[in-house]
Amino acid sequence: MTAAYEPDNIFAKILKGEIPAVKLYEDDDAIAFMDVMPQAPGHLLVIPKAPSRNLLDADPEVLGKLIQVVQKLALAAQEAFDADGVYVAQFNEPAAGQTVFHLHFHVIPRNEGQPLKPHSGSMADIDMLKAQAEKIKAAL
Amino acid sequence: MTAAYEPDNIFAKILKGEIPAVKLYEDDDAIAFMDVMPQAPGHLLVIPKAPSRNLLDADPEVLGKLIQVVQKLALAAQEAFDADGVYVAQFNEPAAGQTVFHLHFHVIPRNEGQPLKPHSGSMADIDMLKAQAEKIKAAL
Repeated sequence: MTAAYEPDNIFAKILKGEIPAVKLYEDDDAIAFMDVMPQAPGHLLVIPKAPSRNLLDADPEVLGKLIQVVQKLALAAQEAFDADGVYVAQFNEPAAGQTVFHLHFHVIPRNEGQPLKPHSGSMADIDMLKAQAEKIKAAL
Repeated sequence: MTAAYEPDNIFAKILKGEIPAVKLYEDDDAIAFMDVMPQAPGHLLVIPKAPSRNLLDADPEVLGKLIQVVQKLALAAQEAFDADGVYVAQFNEPAAGQTVFHLHFHVIPRNEGQPLKPHSGSMADIDMLKAQAEKIKAAL
């Protein structure tokens, strides 16, 4: 069984505006923002406003809307970075790589011959992320 | 831009019944079946019946329903394999790892300390896959 939702996770704090994020998109049900430990240029996250720990305990209706936002952002990120491909990933529980316990989809532009960087644990330069965000927003 | 849909891809052939698959689930819009080159026990795929090359050119409504089937199968696979987590991945274009050009989500049960196997290119034993499929179907 999946553990309970922890309402003080970092993405919940971003949703409440308690922690800053480089935002890309917002609608009634979801937001998208830049991953602060990007594995490639343009690495972004899409999360629902509704609380769920991950995909396993999510409301199916929330999920259905969320994946449509993932698609929107994947297309924008592909265009913004002239990417050869886009990797979409969603991790459930630590054994699968989940480190923040609010449902999120990773959207990562990919280019031939450029391997993904490992999750370094170090934060990217915020001005670089903001510049990347402007490119993605322009493509939305 | 995304290339066009190629109607003779291997998953289209599975949908038409021209190629066998170890099936797990079927509804009006989607099917799920075992990946024949599993990266972990229980590795399965969820695909829409509607043609699209990947997430980038998919009908948003098709996507919305598809992710709900992904959730169903992820929960069943987690239960069937008593998994610590579930990895959900979706690759768009070769640069992102896509090798079959019909939209599909990978659903891979994960356990602590068991790294994913690489995509070996060699087929798994079909009787093993059938036995795994029975466990997943029992959990659906």
